[in-house]
Amino acid sequence: MKNKSDVLEKIISLAKRKGFVYQSSEIYGGLNGCYDYGPLGSEMLRNLKDEWWKFMTYREDVEGLDASILMSPEVWVASGHVENFTDPMIDCKACKARFRVDYLIDQIAAKKKSKMLEALSTVASGDLKTRIDSFSGQVETKTEEVNDFIVDLFETELADNLIAELNCPTCGNKGSFTSARKFNLMFKTFLGPVEETGSTIYLRPETAQGIFVNFLNVQNASRQKVPFGIAQIGKAFRNEINTRYFLFRTREFEQMEMQYFVKPSEDKQYFDYWKSMRMDWFKNLGMNPDNLRYHDHPANKLAHYAKEATDIEYLFPFGWGEIEGIHNRTDFDLARHEQFSKKSLSNFDDDTKEKFLPYIIETSAGASRSFMAFLIDSYDEEDLGGEVRTVLHLNPKLAPVKAAILPLVNKDGMPEFAKKIEAELRTKYKVFYDDKAAIGRRYRRMDEIGTPYAITIDTQTLEDNSVTVRERDSMEQIRIDASKLPGYLAEKLV
Amino acid sequence: MKNKSDVLEKIISLAKRKGFVYQSSEIYGGLNGCYDYGPLGSEMLRNLKDEWWKFMTYREDVEGLDASILMSPEVWVASGHVENFTDPMIDCKACKARFRVDYLIDQIAAKKKSKMLEALSTVASGDLKTRIDSFSGQVETKTEEVNDFIVDLFETELADNLIAELNCPTCGNKGSFTSARKFNLMFKTFLGPVEETGSTIYLRPETAQGIFVNFLNVQNASRQKVPFGIAQIGKAFRNEINTRYFLFRTREFEQMEMQYFVKPSEDKQYFDYWKSMRMDWFKNLGMNPDNLRYHDHPANKLAHYAKEATDIEYLFPFGWGEIEGIHNRTDFDLARHEQFSKKSLSNFDDDTKEKFLPYIIETSAGASRSFMAFLIDSYDEEDLGGEVRTVLHLNPKLAPVKAAILPLVNKDGMPEFAKKIEAELRTKYKVFYDDKAAIGRRYRRMDEIGTPYAITIDTQTLEDNSVTVRERDSMEQIRIDASKLPGYLAEKLV
Repeated sequence: MKNKSDVLEKIISLAKRKGFVYQSSEIYGGLNGCYDYGPLGSEMLRNLKDEWWKFMTYREDVEGLDASILMSPEVWVASGHVENFTDPMIDCKACKARFRVDYLIDQIAAKKKSKMLEALSTVASGDLKTRIDSFSGQVETKTEEVNDFIVDLFETELADNLIAELNCPTCGNKGSFTSARKFNLMFKTFLGPVEETGSTIYLRPETAQGIFVNFLNVQNASRQKVPFGIAQIGKAFRNEINTRYFLFRTREFEQMEMQYFVKPSEDKQYFDYWKSMRMDWFKNLGMNPDNLRYHDHPANKLAHYAKEATDIEYLFPFGWGEIEGIHNRTDFDLARHEQFSKKSLSNFDDDTKEKFLPYIIETSAGASRSFMAFLIDSYDEEDLGGEVRTVLHLNPKLAPVKAAILPLVNKDGMPEFAKKIEAELRTKYKVFYDDKAAIGRRYRRMDEIGTPYAITIDTQTLEDNSVTVRERDSMEQIRIDASKLPGYLAEKLV
Repeated sequence: MKNKSDVLEKIISLAKRKGFVYQSSEIYGGLNGCYDYGPLGSEMLRNLKDEWWKFMTYREDVEGLDASILMSPEVWVASGHVENFTDPMIDCKACKARFRVDYLIDQIAAKKKSKMLEALSTVASGDLKTRIDSFSGQVETKTEEVNDFIVDLFETELADNLIAELNCPTCGNKGSFTSARKFNLMFKTFLGPVEETGSTIYLRPETAQGIFVNFLNVQNASRQKVPFGIAQIGKAFRNEINTRYFLFRTREFEQMEMQYFVKPSEDKQYFDYWKSMRMDWFKNLGMNPDNLRYHDHPANKLAHYAKEATDIEYLFPFGWGEIEGIHNRTDFDLARHEQFSKKSLSNFDDDTKEKFLPYIIETSAGASRSFMAFLIDSYDEEDLGGEVRTVLHLNPKLAPVKAAILPLVNKDGMPEFAKKIEAELRTKYKVFYDDKAAIGRRYRRMDEIGTPYAITIDTQTLEDNSVTVRERDSMEQIRIDASKLPGYLAEKLV
């Protein structure tokens, strides 16, 4: 398929129609930034998470974990989230409406953004001027990057110049905004019956901290020595104003994170190892390598805790977007938790006979984002001599339905034979039985949801016990004895 | 093992030591009512949820779902949770301390509770008097039931008599409490940057509503007709003051729920069907039938939405406790969501040619509670002629580690042979390699975490390629050719 620009809309429509993804609480008008996975989506997401879990934890040096979403509030003080996990926000002095700055920036046309940057360039200096100028003429192609950069400018001395250029989306007044204040992105709630500061807790904005605070517990129980990792899959929550691009930026999302604890001197070696392992994971599950790239963070853009960082990016219809981050977090996290919990988290080095705090190499993948990337990457519209076939070329491991069982016509004992096959396969796989409509149409239905194998029961079946198996991508059919079906599928689906 | 009274303490200790379950944020003193699943716990919980998912959704008439935790606040108005999901709470007039009533009741000695009930009996009348008298002499054996009943009394005309008898746990004053007020058990948080009533949303207190509001979406995508079900596994949150019994009553927990939509006239038939199916599920996964029972709710104790309800109870060390509820919810839920969302949720009956709202048969299991029940049920201390063997007789499907690979000694090529076997099995199973300590001790370690098979590599292995496989429960060993191992395990572990 050549034109991918409208693929996102097509995917959203397919997702709703076929039961992959719905907006949360849709019958009540929806809850922005939250999504529900339908029958096919929940099965495909399970398959994706299973593949990750087995790949990451069915090895000698990585242990699993499933920590709670609610954690002690001190965790988020130690991690820095209470203080630093913020977005700038401004109020309109005229109408008192409040906006997060990123939301405002999004409302501004690219042309106006170009002019804003031009004007800022005349008053900026040094590195800042260089960065502003680097976007010259590229505002439209690098929308997301430019927006993020302008938001960052609100923390610089150029903030006043920016505010003077902003219009209030509510009342239309220009330049009437207050200075930017910080707004914390964590959802907060109250533990116990009294709503007061002392009972404030947070919904975790990332799963990583659950791993850090359990580091010693896991190490003691599993008797692991560095290098070793702890992996977990779980939900995280961020109070984003600016949700966008379907599952790409949501308020509730799922992460697949692994923290690998190493000797400080071995950080580079394991950073490179995991960087490569994680990229291979996406490729081995069938993602087109042309749509994948590394984006190494330049030294001046690294998070405060990071020594080295790279994103694995996927080429979405709206541009390159991060689906996983690999970070060398140094000993920042364990040091902070040592300091705040007053518990020693150090290890003993048998070689140097000294105590040390392990460094952490983190692989942090978005389950929801990866899910969306796999959907998009597998989507195709093929021209079959006039007729268009919509197909999801999903890796069979990810496909929600593994096989369809299709009796050619609904008589002559074919349904009975087909039901027998269905019953046998259903104990192991999610399968789909369909006896409605012409066979060609039934194949198309299965193509559209990515079912890799379609088993047809026809008149010959009743004569010689053979069935046809049609493979989704090649559309080729082979005929095999029905008794060999379980073995055939077991081999193909492993 | 005869004495089960201290089993809970032993399980909690084993869970921590071996890496099944830790308290959340333990290095910060813990967060009450929240737990983290460690390496073995997270794997066992996954296995448990997988078994449920396959049992419930790998059938033609049940679809899966994975709805978001955050939902539109209108959902909880329609469901009745905003108004009714409350516990009574009272304030001490003397010291201003606030308590949930159930917490206070828990603090009162059984003897004093008996006297309270005696006193109330003299002023009560009718049904209430009958119920009060029914507990006569049984307060100690029916602790939980009695406590719940006394809490319910706070909503009756006897409340003042009760309050007069209460001591404040903080300041000690007697009878100084205000009347009981209602406290909502839902955790609330705020969507968007402004904390105000209009932006209040809730963490779901049950997963069921995510199914109800997606009923039509799922039915349309899956082309199902009643009877059919929708199943999902997910976290839910309740702001309990009174957490207790380890994983039994927690603030964050996981549910495995299925809602089966039926014609109103077929409700009894499917209620009975699922009641039986769900009990069989626990038994088929190895739970001792003597520790399982139904507890049918009497008509006067049914929830407002229920026509019929039964609990599947497990005999915990602290008494019988619910691990799953099967409810006939009638058309209450769909009717409420029709009313509040203004969307028709009815189906068309091809026989009667009339529209109808399906009835719902719900099977609602606690994943966390079931996990705990399976741990307790499998725990045993066996006397092996003087030596005590601690063992978890977990069904192999639930066991976190499927097989241990144990080279008898750490030389003569045994480790190399063992590593080869490990590498082969590890792609399919969670396995454990152990070359430390005497072989007997290594077996015990595996018994204690419920590993069903231990594979030993010894001198004979190097001569004839055979290994021994020790089965956990019988402790019997057989010798098989190493090449037959994958097939052997595949057969045993399916």
